Amino acid sequence: MMLKALRIAYDRMGNTSPNPAVGAVIVRNGRIISQEGTCPYGSHHAEVMAIKNAKGDLAGTDMFVTLEPCSHYGKTPPCVDAIIENKIRKVFIPVLDPNPLVSGKGVKRLTGAGVEVNFVRELASHAVDLIRPFRKYILRNRPFIINKSAVTLDGRIATDTGDSRWISSVYSRYLVHRLRAKVDAVIIGKNTQQNDDPALTVRFDTFNGSVPVYFNEYSDTLRGKDNFFIYSLIKQEVTDFKQPLRVLVGIPDLLKKEAKILADDNYIIFEKKERIERFAADREKMDLMRTLNVIELDPVDNTDFVHLIMDELFKKGIMTAMLEGGGRLAGSFFDAGEIDQFMYFIAPRIAGNGIPPVQGKGKSLMEDSLYLKDVSSAMIGDDILYGGYREMYNFEMM
Amino acid sequence: MMLKALRIAYDRMGNTSPNPAVGAVIVRNGRIISQEGTCPYGSHHAEVMAIKNAKGDLAGTDMFVTLEPCSHYGKTPPCVDAIIENKIRKVFIPVLDPNPLVSGKGVKRLTGAGVEVNFVRELASHAVDLIRPFRKYILRNRPFIINKSAVTLDGRIATDTGDSRWISSVYSRYLVHRLRAKVDAVIIGKNTQQNDDPALTVRFDTFNGSVPVYFNEYSDTLRGKDNFFIYSLIKQEVTDFKQPLRVLVGIPDLLKKEAKILADDNYIIFEKKERIERFAADREKMDLMRTLNVIELDPVDNTDFVHLIMDELFKKGIMTAMLEGGGRLAGSFFDAGEIDQFMYFIAPRIAGNGIPPVQGKGKSLMEDSLYLKDVSSAMIGDDILYGGYREMYNFEMM
Repeated sequence: MMLKALRIAYDRMGNTSPNPAVGAVIVRNGRIISQEGTCPYGSHHAEVMAIKNAKGDLAGTDMFVTLEPCSHYGKTPPCVDAIIENKIRKVFIPVLDPNPLVSGKGVKRLTGAGVEVNFVRELASHAVDLIRPFRKYILRNRPFIINKSAVTLDGRIATDTGDSRWISSVYSRYLVHRLRAKVDAVIIGKNTQQNDDPALTVRFDTFNGSVPVYFNEYSDTLRGKDNFFIYSLIKQEVTDFKQPLRVLVGIPDLLKKEAKILADDNYIIFEKKERIERFAADREKMDLMRTLNVIELDPVDNTDFVHLIMDELFKKGIMTAMLEGGGRLAGSFFDAGEIDQFMYFIAPRIAGNGIPPVQGKGKSLMEDSLYLKDVSSAMIGDDILYGGYREMYNFEMM
Repeated sequence: MMLKALRIAYDRMGNTSPNPAVGAVIVRNGRIISQEGTCPYGSHHAEVMAIKNAKGDLAGTDMFVTLEPCSHYGKTPPCVDAIIENKIRKVFIPVLDPNPLVSGKGVKRLTGAGVEVNFVRELASHAVDLIRPFRKYILRNRPFIINKSAVTLDGRIATDTGDSRWISSVYSRYLVHRLRAKVDAVIIGKNTQQNDDPALTVRFDTFNGSVPVYFNEYSDTLRGKDNFFIYSLIKQEVTDFKQPLRVLVGIPDLLKKEAKILADDNYIIFEKKERIERFAADREKMDLMRTLNVIELDPVDNTDFVHLIMDELFKKGIMTAMLEGGGRLAGSFFDAGEIDQFMYFIAPRIAGNGIPPVQGKGKSLMEDSLYLKDVSSAMIGDDILYGGYREMYNFEMM
């Protein structure tokens, strides 16, 4: 039942930010009578949705929910109240709320009202894979940053001339579209815009039918951490999604109105004040600029630039953002200590030279490099999907 | 029985060059009566060794041998004669000899003499994993080149300052020592010598007991091609080996007599004539030079340099050589089209900057990069061992 709830939670990811994606299943005598996930922000949480959609009296039923129910008033009333009012007998949860200010209070309210609360600890690690972005967003008021890259075995994201099509297999590229459906924003730098002119949208229809079939029949298991997010990405079809916000860092010198990233209004561009001032003399550029969604920032350095960008994204309710190139952009975010998850599709290619995936300041000692935690790998066709996190998830315990 | 013979063949790898490592098992009524591998070059092949070591009359027995028995006089008489003379009834082989001039002749001699020959085709692919080096050596008169690298997830073999200790886990490093035991030579460039001062020897005793235990208990399987060489590397302990020849390409500016690579006489240095001429004025350098095993070459360019080096190694009977750094050396061999196998230990580290594993001329289009064939992966601790071959193995068929 908890696994079912987790699958619902995963299904909702990308549609709920900045609320966490949660799944809830209500069971009577071992039979599911209602199952729902979190609604888009501002509307109901999973628990309330499941209660609303259940038929008949809920007294004596059990609820399986993928996160501790909330006990506070946000945009909606506390879920614990609805659970208590409806006389649900037992609530099963895998983990507490990651916010230490809230964590445990939901459980206390429930048990105080006579609701039995059980921890499904064996699935805590799976649940955590889905709420890491929410945890960072709520604790640090910054979006969770995923650095996705397609790299050659010799560590190149493009040739010296900037060509990168294609490094990874059609299966890896299809997974990237699933990933985009699960994040709130995708971010690229200006060189990537100029070299690739990417659309950055979710477009499942550009893949022929044999590609999803590959994943339907995929029987391999993850190695390393049995990451439920990555597992679901591979195994679970995406049905309901919204297009991510497209974020461009820096205005490319040769940016054209026809650039795919500008195709509709669902984009923003961040640029430094000093660079915009330099454009002022260029009439044509300024005319174009006036038609664009540009946010001007005035950072003291690149790390500050990254933080100012993240602050703006936070304000827009972006809980998860994905860096999709290039190396300098990833380098700046890495130097700022803000890349939370690395997901690299490594293809069995040798380029012999080209552009590396992270071009930051670097360290002089290898032992000072970032050693990733909770590492997982999966073979996707001939490619390897390999990566991990900047930090371990510290479980909130009762 | 064929698997047993293959295990023996693997066991002998690194001890037989430039003969292929072969295993032979003689069976009577389903019971093994003799099992042997190829002796060091100049002495007996596996088939003859197995016959010699068998007790009693061999009439009516079966022989499982990992390669088509030879039918020509080399340093030793043809194995087929010994098989025929001893009235062995059936011979089982997985593949023909890769040399088209010889291929099939052994089988013809045997069947002509009334010996039944059976192909164990389901293990052909395993057998091939062990004889690729022999195939290149015999067909192209050049050593088979493995490029082994320990790289970070962001594709660095060292920081900008040259520090690389350690990128990969103790388990990966232990496997590298097993690899060294399986090759005839290891090759490094002058920057790697200066940065790392590596000993390049097989030193299992520097790893504590828990490391081999990890591999004893390793239960994971390979993904992609079920490569028998890599599988054996992980699963099979190395008991009998000789130290590989240490090859240094280029004399480092600050080379000292105390350099570990010079520890004993089992090394050679290749240097370009023009560089040696430049040293001539430097008395101290010339004094050191006179004490070193230096082979002077006069290449027209870097690709020619690679080929001249390979010709020298071929003449020394080096069937398999492994590039162990740095990026420029690998780049030169890659540009020359001479890296046959890539074995990369990718560690879950982000360096943020540093030295890439292959620094060659590169290509302007990604589609012109080298797409590896027969790709395999395995998770070694948190690291991934990932790689493949420059070309597919074309089976010789009857």
